[in-house]
Amino acid sequence: MNFNKNLEDIKTYEAGKPIELVVREFGIEPKDIVKLASNENPYGCSPKVQDAVGKIIANMALYPDDSMVKLKIALSERFKVEANNLIIGSGSDQVIEFLMHAKANAKSKILINSVTFAMYEIYAKHVGAEIIRTTSQQHDLEEFYELYKQESPDIIFLCTPNNPTGDAIDAKEMFRFIDKIDKDTLVVVDGAYMEYAQLKDESKKVDPKIIVDSYDNVIYLGTFSKAYGLGGMRVGYGIANEKIIKELYKLRPPFNITTLSLEAASVALSDEEFVQKSVSLNFDEMKRYEEFASKQKIAIINSYTNFVTLCLNKDQNSSEISSALLRRGMIVRDLNGYGMNAIRVTVGTSLQNSKFFDLFEELI
Amino acid sequence: MNFNKNLEDIKTYEAGKPIELVVREFGIEPKDIVKLASNENPYGCSPKVQDAVGKIIANMALYPDDSMVKLKIALSERFKVEANNLIIGSGSDQVIEFLMHAKANAKSKILINSVTFAMYEIYAKHVGAEIIRTTSQQHDLEEFYELYKQESPDIIFLCTPNNPTGDAIDAKEMFRFIDKIDKDTLVVVDGAYMEYAQLKDESKKVDPKIIVDSYDNVIYLGTFSKAYGLGGMRVGYGIANEKIIKELYKLRPPFNITTLSLEAASVALSDEEFVQKSVSLNFDEMKRYEEFASKQKIAIINSYTNFVTLCLNKDQNSSEISSALLRRGMIVRDLNGYGMNAIRVTVGTSLQNSKFFDLFEELI
Repeated sequence: MNFNKNLEDIKTYEAGKPIELVVREFGIEPKDIVKLASNENPYGCSPKVQDAVGKIIANMALYPDDSMVKLKIALSERFKVEANNLIIGSGSDQVIEFLMHAKANAKSKILINSVTFAMYEIYAKHVGAEIIRTTSQQHDLEEFYELYKQESPDIIFLCTPNNPTGDAIDAKEMFRFIDKIDKDTLVVVDGAYMEYAQLKDESKKVDPKIIVDSYDNVIYLGTFSKAYGLGGMRVGYGIANEKIIKELYKLRPPFNITTLSLEAASVALSDEEFVQKSVSLNFDEMKRYEEFASKQKIAIINSYTNFVTLCLNKDQNSSEISSALLRRGMIVRDLNGYGMNAIRVTVGTSLQNSKFFDLFEELI
Repeated sequence: MNFNKNLEDIKTYEAGKPIELVVREFGIEPKDIVKLASNENPYGCSPKVQDAVGKIIANMALYPDDSMVKLKIALSERFKVEANNLIIGSGSDQVIEFLMHAKANAKSKILINSVTFAMYEIYAKHVGAEIIRTTSQQHDLEEFYELYKQESPDIIFLCTPNNPTGDAIDAKEMFRFIDKIDKDTLVVVDGAYMEYAQLKDESKKVDPKIIVDSYDNVIYLGTFSKAYGLGGMRVGYGIANEKIIKELYKLRPPFNITTLSLEAASVALSDEEFVQKSVSLNFDEMKRYEEFASKQKIAIINSYTNFVTLCLNKDQNSSEISSALLRRGMIVRDLNGYGMNAIRVTVGTSLQNSKFFDLFEELI
């Protein structure tokens, strides 16, 4: 049977290895495995969220409220935007999928950072669009602008803070860049880790309300998978002017968020204390990584997220080190596939981080 | 901002009105609302599933096992197929989306029944494909074959039992039809309600293993949203030969099923007693609809599902009757949008059905 030609070129996204896989592959007990590979919140999710979801478990039988009214009200209040400025996706991934199918096709060009979230490229390939990359590993808006002028892309992705490098763009600088972009080019500001960045440095904070109020060609993406501790529930969102949202809505499958996920995300927004505590603990623990890297004479990228990227020395091989860690039950992300001799490590709990330091020290 | 042209033609899927909306619109107390519009299992979901999900609520913070090993093992055992014959979607809807993007494009033709599941057409429009419809309301395989010869479609959808009419195709007859179809045409057998059909009449039972063993161009779809009582958890599946599954996998977004949904569906497969009891009670209650329709001199389509389609008389208007029922807190599906002066009613619990009979009788 023949399939569409653009499929030939699609690689499957490589997710962080789940704990189940390490159990199966290496026969290590689940309790002895530490997963610092997927940037989950190591403090779990809010107890208020757990209570709320526990109370409606019988509702698993009922289709979700497809108008998502409760979650939309909560998000509207949080960001001071209207419900029609919002679209909810199965993770912000799904919003990326919607906008790719809405705006791009086989004739389109998509401008992304050289090292960035892998799904931009994967979804671009779904529609057969061409990927244009910067050469700079961290976002360089001047290079972005040069490539924009040369290539006239249909979509520009700015991932701030960036995954998997952890650097973030200055918000004012970003808006000055966007001001120079023509109104038919869609600019995507992916703020999956924004809750972390804005606590560390206010100047990195991108306010989605500014995007809604002043830009017809920009969409902001956020997620409940990181600081809100709901990676397993698949809820992300896009915030943009009504016209963009209306087009994306045409591509949204009905019931794209589960009944329990809607409840979890809605209640998560009401427990800001949990989020702030998680973010604050994250940066306390991150200091230990910075000290460790300095002691080991390994470069570390200044991170505005809940992970650190360790750029290894020439005599260290990121793939070998990740594999060796994995065999010892420590799951981190090898960035070799991104063209970097580096590993990305989620900042875990104090205990998890200590274990990482011990194992890493043994290996090098 | 310009968007892709094929979006202009896309209608948004109209989901059955959720209870929340009736609460908001008519100020009726949730306890007084009966929803018989979305073919959910009126007996909820298995208590075993509820217990299992309740125990792992803290895992909401962890990304799902993207290899879905537990659910795949359970499905493999159920259908006597291999894990690589399976793809899991966010509802079987998502598998339809994958196969549409894998097999169809703006030059494709898609052959569907005149009245059938709305998502086939909606996903076809996403890729700009042309829809070819039969004239017959219930599946007429001779007409399908005539249209197949005339139009050379890329995909043929057979929905058995069919939604929203409830009729089912004889399985042997269906395979004889498929035998005549060329090997580059994908035939989709959507068995969302198969658990109901096969209990009512063994001759309607389509065994996915036969499809895997003997057909390179056929995919079977199933779901946990109906008999398994997990409509809120968004889990469906496709079963086909390895080559088809491999292509569809290229389009699957990572983590498309939530952590709690994977657990729910896996455990649901281990409580077959719950499913059999639900299905059995369904047909007991359906008899009451048949008697009611006969008494009211309203035609009812012989249904192999958990809903009945009441084809109203000329002096009765399906839209008016549905609206009047809605104002009284009874949610059913008006089939006017499908070109039928009919309403589709989910067979509910004994109490829910009695309430429907009472309200309907008052209105006509």
